[in-house]
Amino acid sequence: MTSRRPPLEGLPALRDDTLLRALRGECTDRVPAWMMRQAGRYLPEFRDVRAAHGFFEVCRDPALACEVTVQPLERFGAELLSACIIFSDILVVLQALGVEVRMEPKEGPVLPVPLASPDADAFRALAAPAFKGVDVERELGYVFDAIGAARQRIAGRVPLIGFSGAPFTLMGYWVEGGGSRTLSKAKRWLYEWPRESHVVLQRLTDVVVDYLVGQVRAGAQALQVFESNGGDLAPRAWSEFSLPYLAQICKRVKERLAGELGLAGAAVPVVVFSRGSNWEGALEALRDAGFDAVSLDWTVDPAAARERVGDRVALQGNLCPALLYAREEVIRAETHRMLDGFRAGACPHVANLGHGMEPEMDPDRARCFLQAVRDYVVPGKR
Amino acid sequence: MTSRRPPLEGLPALRDDTLLRALRGECTDRVPAWMMRQAGRYLPEFRDVRAAHGFFEVCRDPALACEVTVQPLERFGAELLSACIIFSDILVVLQALGVEVRMEPKEGPVLPVPLASPDADAFRALAAPAFKGVDVERELGYVFDAIGAARQRIAGRVPLIGFSGAPFTLMGYWVEGGGSRTLSKAKRWLYEWPRESHVVLQRLTDVVVDYLVGQVRAGAQALQVFESNGGDLAPRAWSEFSLPYLAQICKRVKERLAGELGLAGAAVPVVVFSRGSNWEGALEALRDAGFDAVSLDWTVDPAAARERVGDRVALQGNLCPALLYAREEVIRAETHRMLDGFRAGACPHVANLGHGMEPEMDPDRARCFLQAVRDYVVPGKR
Repeated sequence: MTSRRPPLEGLPALRDDTLLRALRGECTDRVPAWMMRQAGRYLPEFRDVRAAHGFFEVCRDPALACEVTVQPLERFGAELLSACIIFSDILVVLQALGVEVRMEPKEGPVLPVPLASPDADAFRALAAPAFKGVDVERELGYVFDAIGAARQRIAGRVPLIGFSGAPFTLMGYWVEGGGSRTLSKAKRWLYEWPRESHVVLQRLTDVVVDYLVGQVRAGAQALQVFESNGGDLAPRAWSEFSLPYLAQICKRVKERLAGELGLAGAAVPVVVFSRGSNWEGALEALRDAGFDAVSLDWTVDPAAARERVGDRVALQGNLCPALLYAREEVIRAETHRMLDGFRAGACPHVANLGHGMEPEMDPDRARCFLQAVRDYVVPGKR
Repeated sequence: MTSRRPPLEGLPALRDDTLLRALRGECTDRVPAWMMRQAGRYLPEFRDVRAAHGFFEVCRDPALACEVTVQPLERFGAELLSACIIFSDILVVLQALGVEVRMEPKEGPVLPVPLASPDADAFRALAAPAFKGVDVERELGYVFDAIGAARQRIAGRVPLIGFSGAPFTLMGYWVEGGGSRTLSKAKRWLYEWPRESHVVLQRLTDVVVDYLVGQVRAGAQALQVFESNGGDLAPRAWSEFSLPYLAQICKRVKERLAGELGLAGAAVPVVVFSRGSNWEGALEALRDAGFDAVSLDWTVDPAAARERVGDRVALQGNLCPALLYAREEVIRAETHRMLDGFRAGACPHVANLGHGMEPEMDPDRARCFLQAVRDYVVPGKR
């Protein structure tokens, strides 16, 4: 069910659209940069908030979510950081479906009642013809409120990115009951019950579409879809259980944004990150599915990736996050080498890490990465 | 320090060398098959042994290790299963270096004293000029004994494969103190202390070379090197911290086997499995490093991989292990599709999974996979 709130009212105008132009496939004079999981535990100011509030409490309180969303911008400034991403978690979509998700201190997410098999009550409810879908305004309105608040607080300095987990990744957490190194239960589902798997994936897709459209109505200026577990699937399984839903999300969201909000084409760029899906044909398929930008993990060579997808689609990534543990001159050199490989600026590119920030990381090393991107001279633009 | 035992005495002659011929780059009339982690918890007869004995107790008792090594052959027969692999664990190499490794029931391997930093005593001992290396006969002779016993027990029905973990993978467990989803501590080591990392990796390489040569002296007829964490490294980091040591192992082992045992060239084929290192140039680099065969995880398209490495190097793999949860007709169809993609038989190929068997798997589904390979008709060989 779609969000009913009046869209895009009274939001501050964007002053620096470098990120959006790169995501839309334009060359840029300087390379925009942000970091996956940039609002997170590596920031002392984030840990201060978390000391007083539970993880999902921060997600669900628009004022708190807004505060931590903007923390990286306050620290690094719009000169270095080209975007904020709304603070939330991919698993809020499962919570919206009535699934209990707890965040345990060391363990990460725990779902006490996993989707064990098609005999599970949760599956029967989902598959029933009477299934009513999710009222995203009621279940996830707190995210929309946080987005609106963050837009006000950012005050046009940089764009605000909304996001969602992708259907297979969400299904993986649900089936496994949390994170998993092998995803063997989730893959077992796909192979043992392919028809039922498609039911789950389609229901999740429907929610994700409403959720992403709702985020744009609330003020998100770009969207990213996270298929964090994409690389656990063999190419053929990915083509059957992941890619079609990613493509459907991209198409339906863009149609809805054009029809309901007059935001056609790449007005609100949609980025896809299918981590680990780097085999021949995968990046190309994501491009062809209509995404404006493909975000890459660190196991792809930048020049090879740029060669594969051509000059016109935006790429995002892909510094190995662990490089932020290196000395500053190494971070600078590797960042510049990466940008050279992507032909960043001359080709549409958004500098980012190949995966998220980790709690042990030093904010000053993150700043070093951002500064290295800022100092990078796009060939021909000196 | 090399093994001192007299080599290759009184061992039964091999009656079916299909696997070895494929690994040596020959076309074969039928496609040989085995499964990574084929001696493991999915077999009730294995669980029976483990009910009475600890994990490393089985590794260290040559009679027990021999028994579980041969269990898959006794169950499936030489008609279906083309090789045994010695039952052991990659972490015995760390134990040989004096590192405590425990196998915890649900958790997997635990190293109570991780290699936290170059200040650790273990690093200082390893880096000291007085470091004496490892006497593999004394520390790992139990593996050699198990290999000799298994050769007798197999009685020439199929070849016996020896193996070792690769240096970066071993270092990863050591630094992390066990398994890790992100390997962030291990990667931090590489980037923060590259020089010291090379010391660790070189010392491990020296042990691995002696260990693999010792396994061949004891009766191993092929070798596999497992870089199970290869794909956690960015391409450039892999080229610096993984590939050179893999290449060194291949070269030194082959030189030693030729010089000490008269086993030149591909007499004892050496297989490499660098899981997740599938970017452009990686498979090609492993081939060029001198390995006889490259084992592939499930995230590579078979036809694309064969195209990339050419027709002459052997490939091994790469069915998604989770397909063993599928219905039997799906297992058969996907196995045949995979073999078609690799042009198995017409090109040198060993059918295998893209990763190890899992405890929840049904031995009859494993049999179904092996039977599907056995039933596969190599084009032109009907």
